[in-house]
Amino acid sequence: MKNSVRAQLAEELRKAPRVALFSHVSPDGDCLGSMLGLGLALEALGKEVYMFNPDPFPRNLLFLPGAGKVKSELPNPLPQCLIFVDCSDLQRVKLDAKDFPAESLVLNLDHHISNQNFGHINWVDSKASASGEMVYDLVKELQVELTPEIATNIYTAILTDTGSFKYSNTTSRTHRIVSELLETGINLADIHYYVYDQVPLAKLELLRRGLNQLKIYADGLLAVMTLRSNDFAESQAEESLSEGLIDHGRTIEGVEVAVLLKEVKADVIRVSLRSNRWFDVAKFAHSFGGGGHKRAAGCTLEVPLEEAEKIVIKAIEEELKLGRSS
Amino acid sequence: MKNSVRAQLAEELRKAPRVALFSHVSPDGDCLGSMLGLGLALEALGKEVYMFNPDPFPRNLLFLPGAGKVKSELPNPLPQCLIFVDCSDLQRVKLDAKDFPAESLVLNLDHHISNQNFGHINWVDSKASASGEMVYDLVKELQVELTPEIATNIYTAILTDTGSFKYSNTTSRTHRIVSELLETGINLADIHYYVYDQVPLAKLELLRRGLNQLKIYADGLLAVMTLRSNDFAESQAEESLSEGLIDHGRTIEGVEVAVLLKEVKADVIRVSLRSNRWFDVAKFAHSFGGGGHKRAAGCTLEVPLEEAEKIVIKAIEEELKLGRSS
Repeated sequence: MKNSVRAQLAEELRKAPRVALFSHVSPDGDCLGSMLGLGLALEALGKEVYMFNPDPFPRNLLFLPGAGKVKSELPNPLPQCLIFVDCSDLQRVKLDAKDFPAESLVLNLDHHISNQNFGHINWVDSKASASGEMVYDLVKELQVELTPEIATNIYTAILTDTGSFKYSNTTSRTHRIVSELLETGINLADIHYYVYDQVPLAKLELLRRGLNQLKIYADGLLAVMTLRSNDFAESQAEESLSEGLIDHGRTIEGVEVAVLLKEVKADVIRVSLRSNRWFDVAKFAHSFGGGGHKRAAGCTLEVPLEEAEKIVIKAIEEELKLGRSS
Repeated sequence: MKNSVRAQLAEELRKAPRVALFSHVSPDGDCLGSMLGLGLALEALGKEVYMFNPDPFPRNLLFLPGAGKVKSELPNPLPQCLIFVDCSDLQRVKLDAKDFPAESLVLNLDHHISNQNFGHINWVDSKASASGEMVYDLVKELQVELTPEIATNIYTAILTDTGSFKYSNTTSRTHRIVSELLETGINLADIHYYVYDQVPLAKLELLRRGLNQLKIYADGLLAVMTLRSNDFAESQAEESLSEGLIDHGRTIEGVEVAVLLKEVKADVIRVSLRSNRWFDVAKFAHSFGGGGHKRAAGCTLEVPLEEAEKIVIKAIEEELKLGRSS
C-alpha cells in the first residue's frame, strides 16, 4: 500500500513539466536536504524546478549542493504540481490552501506521525528516520542516477534527523541506505565540518555561562542550569543558541533529570526539562501548564527567576524522593 | 589474499579447544568490544575462552555483554592458541614474547596500519574502520549466529572508533555491517546512554575552567585554552579527562587552529594542537620537538605556562599570516 502511494506520487512527478517544492519554517537539515535531493533529481529529469523556504537558510547548511536555488518567494505563475517535503501541515510553510489555484495538485511527503494528510496524495511514513530516507526511495523509483550532489543532500537529511545515527529512530534500513549513499563518494569530512564544526562563539559563551551556574541537587540526580536575560544580551546570543545546552546537564554521570531555566524577559521563565531513564518530565511539565514527551518537556513560569528555580527544584526533589517505583 | 589470511585464522580458532584473547592498555570501545564479540562467538562454539586486559575496565563500557569475563591476570596454564585483537604490537598488551611458551600459536587481528606483524598469522586490514568490522567478518566466517550480545559488542567497537560514524575512516561497508548488526534488535538507546551520556562531573568542571580561559587570536583564526595544575587538582580530574576539550576550541566558527596548554607540572607544559582545513599542526609541533598528524599534533615545552602560551601564540600567528598558500 505504502509503495503504491509512492508509485502514484512518482507518477505525478514524472508527468509534471514544472514542479514547486516546499519545506518548513525554521528549516533544518532534513527538510532542506530532502527538498534539495529531490529537487536536483527532478532537474535531472529535465523539469523546471522551484524550491521554496520561507525563512533564511541556516549558515551551516549553505554547503548543501543547490542551496542557492532555494528561494523565499513563490514562483509566478505557480506550477500546477506542488510537493511538500517534511511538512506536517501547511502552517509549517507559512502558507494557506487558498494561496494555491484550485487546479493545483498537492503532493505530501513526510515522516512525521502528526502529519495532517493535507495533500491530494499523502505519502507519510512515520517509520522512516528522516524524510531523507523517503526521498532516497523516491529517487530510486524515478530511476534518477544517485549523484554525489543528490547523495550529499540526502545523507545530511538523515544525519541531522538521527543525531548522527544516535536516536532510536535509526534503523537497520537507515544504515543500509547510508551505505549506498557513501558509495557515490561523498565527502564525509566536509559534511561533518560544515554541519557540526561551525559553532558560533556566542553559543560557546552561553555554554560557559551555563556551566558557571550549574548546580547539582538530590544526591546527584538533578542538574540545574540558569541563564538570565543579561546572559543572552551580553553573549549577543539569540535564544535558539541555547539549544543543546541542557544536554551538558543531562549527560553528567548519575544525573536523572536536567533543568534549564531561561529568563526570556522579566518574570517570564522558560523551563526546559530532560530525563534519562525513568523520570516522566512530561507529567511534571503538565502539572505546571506545559507539555512534551516523557524524556523532553517544558513549561513557562511567570515569576522571578529565583522563585522559579526554587519551585522547580523543590517539586522535582519531591518527585525524585518517591523514586523510580512511583 | 586478505580473505585467505582470515580463513587461516578462522581455521586455527576452529581447531583450538582453548583460546586466550588479548586487548590493549588504556582499553577503548574497539579493543574491548572486538575482544568480547569474538570471545562470545568462540564460547558459542563450545571453547574454553579467556579474555585479558591489563588495565581497569572503563566505567562507561561495563555494560558490554560479557564485560565481567575480562580478567587482568593471565590464565594458568596458558592456552596454546592466543589471539591479539586491536593491538599494533605486544607492548600494547604490557606483555613480552618471552611470556609465552615456545609452542604458542600467536594470531594477530588488527586494523592499525602501524601493526608490527608480530604473530604467526597476521590479519591486518588498515581499511577497516575498526577491528570490530574484522571481528564481524570473522564471526560470519566461523558461522556463529550473530546474537544481540555479540552484535552489541561489535556495534560499540565500530561506533567508538568512527566517532559515531563521523570520522573519514567510515565507509559504505561500515554502514552495511552496522545495518546487519541492527537487525539483531540491539538496544541503541541503551548503548548510546552508557557510552556517551555518563560524563564525570570532573570533566565538565575542566570544560568550565577551559572555557573561562578561552581566548581568540589572529582575527578569529586561533583559539587558545589553558589548564593549570590547580585546575586539575581542584576539579579532582585526571589529565585524561581533558580529552575532547580542545574540540570546543576547534569547532568555533571561523577557527582554523585550536591549542590547549596543560600545565602537567611546574614548567612542563603539554601543548595539544588541532586544525580544521589547511594548517599543518604536525609541522608546527615538530619544530618544537613534538609530532603528530596534519590535523592533530602535540609537543611539550619546559617553561612556565605564561611563557609557553606567548611562544605558541606568536609562532602560530606568524604562520597564519603567511596564509593558506604557504
